[in-house]
Amino acid sequence: MKTLKILSVSLLMSLYTGTAQEKPVDYVNPFIGTSNFGATNPGAIAPRGMASVSPFNVAGKQNVLEKDSRWLSNPYVHENSFLTGFTHVNLSGVGCPDLGVIITMPTTGDLETDHLKYGTTYTDEVAKAGYYSVNLSEYNVRAEATASTRTGVTRYSFPAGKSNILLNLGLGLTNEQGAMVKVVSPTEIEGMRTVGSFCYNSPEHAYPVYFVAKFSIPAEEFGIWKKPATYEGVEAQWMTYNGKTRMMKDFTREVVGDSIGAYFRYDFKKPTQVEVQIGVSYVSIDNARKNLEKETGGLSFDVVYEKTKNAWNEQLSRIEVEGGTEDDKTIFYTALYHTLIHPNIFNDINGEYPEIATGKIGKTDKRRFTVFSLWDTYRNYHQFMSLLYPDQQLEMVKSMLDMYDENGWLPKWELNSTETFTMVGDPASVVLADTYLWGLTGFDIEKAYEAMKKGATQLEDNPIRPALDDYIRDGYVNSESLPDGVVSTTQEYNIADYAIARLAKALGKKEDYQLFSKRSLSYRKLFDKKLKLLRPRNPDGSWYEPFDPVKGANFEKNMGFIEGNAWQYVFMVPQDIEGMIKLMGGRKNFETRLDYIFDNGHYDMANEPDIAYPFLYNYVKGSEWKAQKRVRELLDTYYKNAPDGLPGNDDTGTMSAWAIYAMMGIYPVTPANPEYTFVAPRFSKVTIHLDTDYYAKDKLIITSDNPGEGRYIDKIIVNGKEHQGYFISDKKLLSAGEILFHSSKKH
Amino acid sequence: MKTLKILSVSLLMSLYTGTAQEKPVDYVNPFIGTSNFGATNPGAIAPRGMASVSPFNVAGKQNVLEKDSRWLSNPYVHENSFLTGFTHVNLSGVGCPDLGVIITMPTTGDLETDHLKYGTTYTDEVAKAGYYSVNLSEYNVRAEATASTRTGVTRYSFPAGKSNILLNLGLGLTNEQGAMVKVVSPTEIEGMRTVGSFCYNSPEHAYPVYFVAKFSIPAEEFGIWKKPATYEGVEAQWMTYNGKTRMMKDFTREVVGDSIGAYFRYDFKKPTQVEVQIGVSYVSIDNARKNLEKETGGLSFDVVYEKTKNAWNEQLSRIEVEGGTEDDKTIFYTALYHTLIHPNIFNDINGEYPEIATGKIGKTDKRRFTVFSLWDTYRNYHQFMSLLYPDQQLEMVKSMLDMYDENGWLPKWELNSTETFTMVGDPASVVLADTYLWGLTGFDIEKAYEAMKKGATQLEDNPIRPALDDYIRDGYVNSESLPDGVVSTTQEYNIADYAIARLAKALGKKEDYQLFSKRSLSYRKLFDKKLKLLRPRNPDGSWYEPFDPVKGANFEKNMGFIEGNAWQYVFMVPQDIEGMIKLMGGRKNFETRLDYIFDNGHYDMANEPDIAYPFLYNYVKGSEWKAQKRVRELLDTYYKNAPDGLPGNDDTGTMSAWAIYAMMGIYPVTPANPEYTFVAPRFSKVTIHLDTDYYAKDKLIITSDNPGEGRYIDKIIVNGKEHQGYFISDKKLLSAGEILFHSSKKH
Repeated sequence: MKTLKILSVSLLMSLYTGTAQEKPVDYVNPFIGTSNFGATNPGAIAPRGMASVSPFNVAGKQNVLEKDSRWLSNPYVHENSFLTGFTHVNLSGVGCPDLGVIITMPTTGDLETDHLKYGTTYTDEVAKAGYYSVNLSEYNVRAEATASTRTGVTRYSFPAGKSNILLNLGLGLTNEQGAMVKVVSPTEIEGMRTVGSFCYNSPEHAYPVYFVAKFSIPAEEFGIWKKPATYEGVEAQWMTYNGKTRMMKDFTREVVGDSIGAYFRYDFKKPTQVEVQIGVSYVSIDNARKNLEKETGGLSFDVVYEKTKNAWNEQLSRIEVEGGTEDDKTIFYTALYHTLIHPNIFNDINGEYPEIATGKIGKTDKRRFTVFSLWDTYRNYHQFMSLLYPDQQLEMVKSMLDMYDENGWLPKWELNSTETFTMVGDPASVVLADTYLWGLTGFDIEKAYEAMKKGATQLEDNPIRPALDDYIRDGYVNSESLPDGVVSTTQEYNIADYAIARLAKALGKKEDYQLFSKRSLSYRKLFDKKLKLLRPRNPDGSWYEPFDPVKGANFEKNMGFIEGNAWQYVFMVPQDIEGMIKLMGGRKNFETRLDYIFDNGHYDMANEPDIAYPFLYNYVKGSEWKAQKRVRELLDTYYKNAPDGLPGNDDTGTMSAWAIYAMMGIYPVTPANPEYTFVAPRFSKVTIHLDTDYYAKDKLIITSDNPGEGRYIDKIIVNGKEHQGYFISDKKLLSAGEILFHSSKKH
Repeated sequence: MKTLKILSVSLLMSLYTGTAQEKPVDYVNPFIGTSNFGATNPGAIAPRGMASVSPFNVAGKQNVLEKDSRWLSNPYVHENSFLTGFTHVNLSGVGCPDLGVIITMPTTGDLETDHLKYGTTYTDEVAKAGYYSVNLSEYNVRAEATASTRTGVTRYSFPAGKSNILLNLGLGLTNEQGAMVKVVSPTEIEGMRTVGSFCYNSPEHAYPVYFVAKFSIPAEEFGIWKKPATYEGVEAQWMTYNGKTRMMKDFTREVVGDSIGAYFRYDFKKPTQVEVQIGVSYVSIDNARKNLEKETGGLSFDVVYEKTKNAWNEQLSRIEVEGGTEDDKTIFYTALYHTLIHPNIFNDINGEYPEIATGKIGKTDKRRFTVFSLWDTYRNYHQFMSLLYPDQQLEMVKSMLDMYDENGWLPKWELNSTETFTMVGDPASVVLADTYLWGLTGFDIEKAYEAMKKGATQLEDNPIRPALDDYIRDGYVNSESLPDGVVSTTQEYNIADYAIARLAKALGKKEDYQLFSKRSLSYRKLFDKKLKLLRPRNPDGSWYEPFDPVKGANFEKNMGFIEGNAWQYVFMVPQDIEGMIKLMGGRKNFETRLDYIFDNGHYDMANEPDIAYPFLYNYVKGSEWKAQKRVRELLDTYYKNAPDGLPGNDDTGTMSAWAIYAMMGIYPVTPANPEYTFVAPRFSKVTIHLDTDYYAKDKLIITSDNPGEGRYIDKIIVNGKEHQGYFISDKKLLSAGEILFHSSKKH
């Protein structure tokens, strides 16, 4: 099978001409997003890795944010202080807890398997792309982590004396429990762990992740621990061991249970390093072993890290930036890094993966991608992938179509071949149309169209678009169609319909084009002219009462909106901004309304619905400087070279893609319409290396004479000619070669 | 590998000349022992089968004896009434709960997975050797069971309509929990279940039993159910499914957990039979599948049953009886059946089995036996095996020696390659010596002797003989050596030392013979001449106080004795009956003391220590009729053709072996001394078919002219000559050809 596309070495070299300290990979700060609920983690991961190794510090009351005390979706929180191990499968930038399991932990002295007792404070954290390390205060052990695509690798530097490596399968971020473990030999452990119930949904689809762990030094002693559930009934009086943790020394058979683990023990004469490689698979233990053997078998920690670091640098070097502060570069390359984590590779080294919903094991010679947080990513992430990594975007689209083949439906929020049905709308249709219309046509567009149309038209047993009948009949989902979020749902269906219409037009399906174009504007029926907001209607057409425009922020459930309120949704009609301008009573009113939202705290940078708002000023001629101003302010306020340096949940790279675009000075404001709008870039020069397998030009250079505070664009030169307006089509952009922003101080 | 030795067909035919209704196999009543804590079960099993299928009716308060409400060691109790499935691995006649798992259950209508809800009353039970069936009242389903050695086979006759077959891995007799299950296809399920902690000991050695289940009709719908532990913490508020059973329809991945199962569903147009074959293995799922495929693959229920029935008949036909009532024959052949359940085969069809303690998978081309309840079976069971099934006895001995090779120690109470260390003493030594001295010399006697001597002499880290140093120094284990049972332990060590001495003599090891002969009599130091009882001593040699001769009956713990009191132990010196006669002050006092015990309710037929007491009258010339009388009374009182037809726990066939011997008129009163003593037989003619691979004569015939009530032996004719006394050596017995008892009315 094909591996991540590698640019030739000579190209790689040519990409970069600076000193060793200044490679793009050196600008990655994985701590960004590890506070302020960014939900990233500082762990080691390869680009789009299935395995990753994250420090796990969210268990135990010693921590500020404890996993069981709230809705917490990340294995690591920067302000916490009590570490209980290193997890080997993790999600990054998602809003619900899952994975965060297969935990290793080095300790010294006597064996202790209770994480509340073996946990420790720590110092001297280091995190880089593909690398994490920390000193464990209690044990004087340095723990380091790196990873290949499917294998997590750790290295523990023990002092002389008794040392232990725990493999804890009881503890985890996921609420799912149940594991199997077997010590195969003094250098190998295999097993599985149950994960799933993402967003506290679909527990019946909880599923296994398999692993094989190989140790560089044979255990001098090994065993299993198991803490069974407490037995009830009179008979329990004879069970002196009832509910207690049992230590199964030398045990080499399978052990299953909710709270189990394996331990390896050593007694080192002198300080000693032990390296642990953990291959993972969602297919089988055998495949986990194959993944490990093929990727890291026989390789030292240092070699694995070097390969992964190089892989990161190759990916990150697709964009070079000059100018800007060191922090700007760190924010930029870390954002780019965060866009290269999910969707991640899901198939094993032999091509096998669990199909979605069928229970079968599929096989592919492509990459099978997973973790499609499409409600987020349809807005800007996949556009960015099409621009920078067209080969990856195409394989993501193909993965989505394979899901359709397997499942009968496009994905909605797919996670490791489970459909979590999180969020609303029909975002896959937008991504498929956008990719094709962008010019990446190398996939089965007829199948894609069939799949999109099925989701948009099948009235019964349609898991993608609930209340579709109401939507088609009335143009909106009403207050009795669904328990909440009916306006949001209508808007999302509109956007998806717009995408279908656009694609239909491109495919010459004129009737569909007419039909879906019309459907895409039906949100207008929810526009209350008095309030100048969208609001929910009852089945009889009357407005749903009560209506509070502010209700819905901070994830508060409400009838109209999902994860947002009326302010944050009213302009989320990218398919019909001109229509919205009319509804608002003209450009002036449109601009005033936008101003009102920003100036009165109604804008929420932390979530997706209003993500494109600042760019909408570009629709008001003469006020484009406000787009530049708002974007600059938002970047300055929310994107920092610090753990709280993301506005909130990264949403599998969507927030990061926003920052990348914003810092480069372009933004794809309308999904499924391959057009960019301009703002002032953050850097004096941005060089985007284009993939010449897909694009005629090998680069796009964006330069800016002064993108700083108080200065705004007064002229945009595209290929030496002054560009009219603040929008540019994909074709023009890709063939531009160079875009030059002239700025002057004004406003 | 070698299968159970099959006598030639012509011999088989010649063994039996009656009508079809009267084959030995037809006299087996598996309900005997299913009440009165006999701990047998009426399930279907092949001779020495690893798999068996027992009805499971000990869960739920609807039952008189509920498994969690007391110490209950059997999957079935005859007086219970609420059945919750059919278990596929079971123990028979043991005193501690274990196994009783891999439960199938047919139901109809809606799917219900809670055994308290799906359980049902039942009628029309039928149990035969290798067969069990029952009507499930709630469902109008007839459930039938049979088994090959390693595969349990059930057949469910469903009415038309919705039907379900549950495979419940949560429920079980064992207190261990934890299972894995995977639906492989609509006709196959595989998985494992944790078992162990026998006698509430050694939970750290709990281990897996694997299975593969094949269904004759593909499921129309299938799935898994899982009831996870209830999640605690604030986070649980979002888990609407917290602690609830989840139904995982169509799920085909591994699921692990404490309370899980798989279901197959059907909707039958007409009444339909489904056959389910469940292969088991203690090595792996693959081996379970091989076991199934080789033994029952492609065979119908009826064919499997026929083969198993024939195998039973072949084994049971080794003894023919004539005369006696139908009940006598049923009691006799059921007892014989019960001696052919444990020790059972443990290796898979490919020879593999888990070694004891090492964690390795061993391989053998012999039969590997397991379930060695040696504290029970050394007394008469293995003597009987040597007589009737010498090939099996030899392979049992070889299995014990293989355990020594693997483990460094002979077994004590071995169960599925775990050493449970239940009971006291060093019984393996007795069995090894007895077998060799009986003339079955086809095993590595030097290794055996080395193993025996190690257990008898290694002072430190000796798991077989705790407090051995005290025993060797003082001749007894004192009141501070062990928490309880110090007299019993001393007596058991004496008996084992006697066996070693006897073997040493036979092997020409004169010094050892002297040493161990002397050691074997040291119990005498515990004889209190005043009380004429054995009693515990303190370390300083003084008597331990308080001393109550009655204390210790009914499993009451006490300093002196294990599972018995001073009365039940005082004559348990089979190696030194003449010495005991002297201690008692001569034969008259000896006899009076015996009478006192029997006549005052101090004799306990339900346990082993005093099992040989009634035969001890044969040591008192002129009083041998009392042996005949006591034995006849005990048989009449405790052995019945009824569920409560065993005196108590069958102790893996020991109680049954007692009855067989007693009914044949011979008993091996002194272990490791191949000598029999006589009582009046129950039958007018007993023909024992001897294995001519081992013995010169092909049969031993025991006839009796009138063994009935009020008549006693007045003459014993051996090979036509009047025999002197009531004892006969093994050699004389085996070469006797015929023994004739003349009886007359007297006393």
